[in-house]
Amino acid sequence: MPELRKDPVTGRWVIIATDRARRPSDFSREPVPKPREGSPCPFCYGAEHKTPPEVLAYRQGGGPNQSGWTLRVVPNKFPALEIEGNLNREGEGMFDRMNGLGAHEVIVESPSHSASLIDLSEGQVEDVLWACRERIVDLKRDQRLRFIVVFKNHGSAAGASIEHSHCQLIALPVTPKRVREEIDGARGYFAFRERCVFCDIIHQESNAGVRMVTETEHFAALEPYAPRFPFETWILPKAHQSHFEDADASCFANLAWVLKSTLRKLDKVLEQPAYNFVIHSSPIQEAQTQHYHWHIEIIPRLTRIAGFEWATGFYINPTPPEEAAKFLREVGV
Amino acid sequence: MPELRKDPVTGRWVIIATDRARRPSDFSREPVPKPREGSPCPFCYGAEHKTPPEVLAYRQGGGPNQSGWTLRVVPNKFPALEIEGNLNREGEGMFDRMNGLGAHEVIVESPSHSASLIDLSEGQVEDVLWACRERIVDLKRDQRLRFIVVFKNHGSAAGASIEHSHCQLIALPVTPKRVREEIDGARGYFAFRERCVFCDIIHQESNAGVRMVTETEHFAALEPYAPRFPFETWILPKAHQSHFEDADASCFANLAWVLKSTLRKLDKVLEQPAYNFVIHSSPIQEAQTQHYHWHIEIIPRLTRIAGFEWATGFYINPTPPEEAAKFLREVGV
Repeated sequence: MPELRKDPVTGRWVIIATDRARRPSDFSREPVPKPREGSPCPFCYGAEHKTPPEVLAYRQGGGPNQSGWTLRVVPNKFPALEIEGNLNREGEGMFDRMNGLGAHEVIVESPSHSASLIDLSEGQVEDVLWACRERIVDLKRDQRLRFIVVFKNHGSAAGASIEHSHCQLIALPVTPKRVREEIDGARGYFAFRERCVFCDIIHQESNAGVRMVTETEHFAALEPYAPRFPFETWILPKAHQSHFEDADASCFANLAWVLKSTLRKLDKVLEQPAYNFVIHSSPIQEAQTQHYHWHIEIIPRLTRIAGFEWATGFYINPTPPEEAAKFLREVGV
Repeated sequence: MPELRKDPVTGRWVIIATDRARRPSDFSREPVPKPREGSPCPFCYGAEHKTPPEVLAYRQGGGPNQSGWTLRVVPNKFPALEIEGNLNREGEGMFDRMNGLGAHEVIVESPSHSASLIDLSEGQVEDVLWACRERIVDLKRDQRLRFIVVFKNHGSAAGASIEHSHCQLIALPVTPKRVREEIDGARGYFAFRERCVFCDIIHQESNAGVRMVTETEHFAALEPYAPRFPFETWILPKAHQSHFEDADASCFANLAWVLKSTLRKLDKVLEQPAYNFVIHSSPIQEAQTQHYHWHIEIIPRLTRIAGFEWATGFYINPTPPEEAAKFLREVGV
């Protein structure tokens, strides 16, 4: 019989179709192709003038906006939000609006056109994490901004329009609804139990083992109890921490390993799927809290049946997380 | 400058990209092809034995589960939920689960394999609405069920797996999160203003006109102020009503006309897009309320960039609703 499961953070119920469980090979989709070298690309060496001037770069040589960088952060050429101006909050009758003020930046992960994130060295992946942290620390000084989302679209099915591997960062004057729900849910759980719900999840899953994928000194990669999507995977720091940007050096080295390892496992089990990942962290202007716990959510793009889910917030997941975790634990990378 | 707009019902902020507004022709996608006659289909005359026995049919002739019907409702052969058994709510440590108890039915809209909903006569569309109502009234007698979603997936990009035109109905033992958010938001608005938020929307939009698509005696079809998706369209009854199944005969005749007209307009402006629609109504076991207002949400599937939106609940919409409404008002059907 199918099962209804409740996400303990947000309270969302999902249907887990235990009877007709889908194995990795049951999802029909196109593997994300390797980018071809030689095509003109604004993120390659020699094309630095094709992007707005860089806001951060790690370099082996060269000057600003010249070749020689190993990682480069630039404003998005077609930003969803703009950093100049003021919010100008106002009403339109019963409606509320404000100017689309914020930042939209691109983190070019390496000079290599064809390497995807999982092809990079652990040091390079760690650099990506550090660059995200540096940009957050810089942007949070702007008091108009309230929330920063770091995310990655891998493959065109996941929304990537440029194949040269990159992450994106959007800084917003509001907190996105889904993150707000998580924070509110975590606050409610804390009010009831005086414990962080994410710490409790890590504790229970570590003991049970069935949904755990990888556990290291500082991180746990696991399949959540009530996932919306097949092979949805979360990476959480084991020690309680509300803000991603407060993580320290030893933590990021360990995270680089876990993130790369988890993405490689998904890549192998699901045969080069398109995917998104996103860092969920606390609103940047808020102090550290005992109830919220930053983490990374990875969503492979396996199913297209999304309109109904969009319209209702009600998800039907054909793969139980216990089975997904078993596949991911057992695959060697 | 892009604009941030807040949905007055749920409080969700969206980015409306006013600077790079996309016109209908800017969306690249494949038109939904016309179904080809002659392919074997479980929803055509003569294939009645290929589905579970019907739970409702409108007929010109023939007996149960024989040809001669004009509309037929059958249980889904691969249901997401099952009607037999009991809920068996239980915990698994900190987690909550219950059995996937519920109903999952298919409303085959007509015997024609190739006709889509917009090709049917108004009388046939009205029959579809009546059939939904009849099934809801029957299922709500089951006290285990709390919520019924009626929805349609049109085109494979919208999740349709069988091309013979049909709607679906899922009856659930819980209320889906997104609908719960709407109901809670509407309750909060009512507590503050002692008016229904949807009634206020209809009133303001009817006066302003810029986001209105069609207005009839009983219904308004409009583009919402803070739409998540380009050409997202809502159809609302003008008179306050919390439950879809309480609508009366004159209302359904008018709704059939508005629904068909609106879908035809979207079909013409967007060139045969895949789409989903869903009926949002009150939980079936709850009495009529002054704060919630049933309505239909139509979402054309134009953009693929959804992973980021899934992960954050933060939507970037490249088409302002004022422009979408203008296209839809001006197109003749």
